[in-house]
Amino acid sequence: MLKVPDHQVAGHQARNGQLGPLIDDSGRFYKPLQDDDRGSKEVAFYSSFSSNTRVPDHIRRLFPVFHGTQLLEASDGSGLRPHLVLEDVVSTRSHPSVMDIKIGSRTWYPESSEDYIQRCFKKDRETSSLSLGFRISGLQIYGNEESGFWKPERKLVQNLSAADVRVVLKKFVSSDLPVDPNSDPDCSFAASVYGGSTGILAQLLELKAWFEDQTMYHLNSCSVLLVYEKEKLLIGERSDAEVKLIDFAHVTEGKGIIDHNFLGGLCSLIKFISEILTSPDDCTTKACLRDSEKDKEILTSPDECTTKVCLQDSDKNTNHSENGTIEGM
Amino acid sequence: MLKVPDHQVAGHQARNGQLGPLIDDSGRFYKPLQDDDRGSKEVAFYSSFSSNTRVPDHIRRLFPVFHGTQLLEASDGSGLRPHLVLEDVVSTRSHPSVMDIKIGSRTWYPESSEDYIQRCFKKDRETSSLSLGFRISGLQIYGNEESGFWKPERKLVQNLSAADVRVVLKKFVSSDLPVDPNSDPDCSFAASVYGGSTGILAQLLELKAWFEDQTMYHLNSCSVLLVYEKEKLLIGERSDAEVKLIDFAHVTEGKGIIDHNFLGGLCSLIKFISEILTSPDDCTTKACLRDSEKDKEILTSPDECTTKVCLQDSDKNTNHSENGTIEGM
Repeated sequence: MLKVPDHQVAGHQARNGQLGPLIDDSGRFYKPLQDDDRGSKEVAFYSSFSSNTRVPDHIRRLFPVFHGTQLLEASDGSGLRPHLVLEDVVSTRSHPSVMDIKIGSRTWYPESSEDYIQRCFKKDRETSSLSLGFRISGLQIYGNEESGFWKPERKLVQNLSAADVRVVLKKFVSSDLPVDPNSDPDCSFAASVYGGSTGILAQLLELKAWFEDQTMYHLNSCSVLLVYEKEKLLIGERSDAEVKLIDFAHVTEGKGIIDHNFLGGLCSLIKFISEILTSPDDCTTKACLRDSEKDKEILTSPDECTTKVCLQDSDKNTNHSENGTIEGM
Repeated sequence: MLKVPDHQVAGHQARNGQLGPLIDDSGRFYKPLQDDDRGSKEVAFYSSFSSNTRVPDHIRRLFPVFHGTQLLEASDGSGLRPHLVLEDVVSTRSHPSVMDIKIGSRTWYPESSEDYIQRCFKKDRETSSLSLGFRISGLQIYGNEESGFWKPERKLVQNLSAADVRVVLKKFVSSDLPVDPNSDPDCSFAASVYGGSTGILAQLLELKAWFEDQTMYHLNSCSVLLVYEKEKLLIGERSDAEVKLIDFAHVTEGKGIIDHNFLGGLCSLIKFISEILTSPDDCTTKACLRDSEKDKEILTSPDECTTKVCLQDSDKNTNHSENGTIEGM
């Protein structure tokens, strides 16, 4: 039995007779192929990626599992249409907090049509993509049983300033009700969700190390999805925070060049998240320091947080530390 | 006694009555301030940077020393004009090989005028900036006493393909005469110039680590200069290879955001140089393996070369190795 996903925060949605993705009860996500070449390009990417033995396992797990394609009744009633069959990355969670962040200061690429380039160029300048190297495409943050989810309008989140992005990334990991605009987010869950050896920052750093090296794919206009379940943390369970890359309709071949556009934007996002973990004056000291001994490096040494290797190697380079923002000019 | 620099490879040149930089015998470089706001912006950057105590010493030495400004007779005969007084970064070398590489896939920035944005946008697409994340703005490679320097036209080097950039970066560190288009560069000096704990790659990796963290400056349209003296290596002296950042007329405040555009392009350049050091089939095995034991990590473990920390830490992460180009799609 197929149904409309409850926790989709961006992209086309299968509501009111529109064409959009569907899910089933077995944890699969069915994404309709678009008529233009975007659909076939996304299939080509998943086919290549899923059979590419040069992708290491710790990177592969940051992508949804691909189960081929399948002809299904489309959600807009237009009849049978091929769908990508993917892992539903939130299926095991009941109230997932989700953020969809489109990476890269540029969403177009040299092979695009002139019309597409101009449209993207305009949108990249109108949103935060150009300045921050990424834009938030959508999000939902779970408050509690009474308040449910805070799910702001897409237009509200796409063009946030650096200061606003900081607030949203803090709200994402705070126990305060996210909808309250006057609240000073307490970052209660920052250490559990962003920090730690398996947290979101560690996963983003693994991705970064791969992007510094791989020259196979350029992930134009692709998003990282940040997902976790607040309720698990409230009852003392271990964090299930996960990073997943999605949306590959504009992937091109790397041709021996790294994806410097994705890498730059990813490093910018990493810097924002690192600062939430490392700047005690910006979130409550209690939240920042409450994590286990094992995660200590990530919380106390800002310069150590920039590479995966550093997670295991914290005694060097401590003299370059630089907390917070400096306006030197 | 001021004179026209012999080893300038890009930018305005003080020849034939043009306005351009001058040098003296004491190792100083005098750069005339331009009439528009570029001159004052570059002075503002040097003033800020030179007095900024948050810039670590190992980063500061990658920038020319700033000695203030001085009124001098301009090279175009137009009378007294303020000049930046800087360190002449090639003054101690007699036949320096020099490469000027403008970093970033985008040379404009949000604060630019619409006219400037459109001109840069066009040029970034016409040159290799967009695809590679950098473009070679000029270069000279010393051959020998008879052949002198190879100094190709700027237009020839600005729009190189990935394959051509690889050849030029190899020619830069080869004993073959660079002018011979059919030569297969032997990369004789790759290990000495690019490799090693004080070589160009190590210096670029220090710069990279700083750009992952610093949010003070955005170095729009800035270049890295790679410099070394081939003759020193031929007589068995230690390499004097140096990286210097130059051209700060378009620097803007970082405002709490990393310079993801510079960082992405820098990572792309680092990948090209790493590959020359790590791909034995692309340069002669003899050249790649001839360096000292101390430099071994940088030469043999491609995935280890992507961070500064890794230079001292080579036993981990060896299973992600990926040499050469893979066409996975």
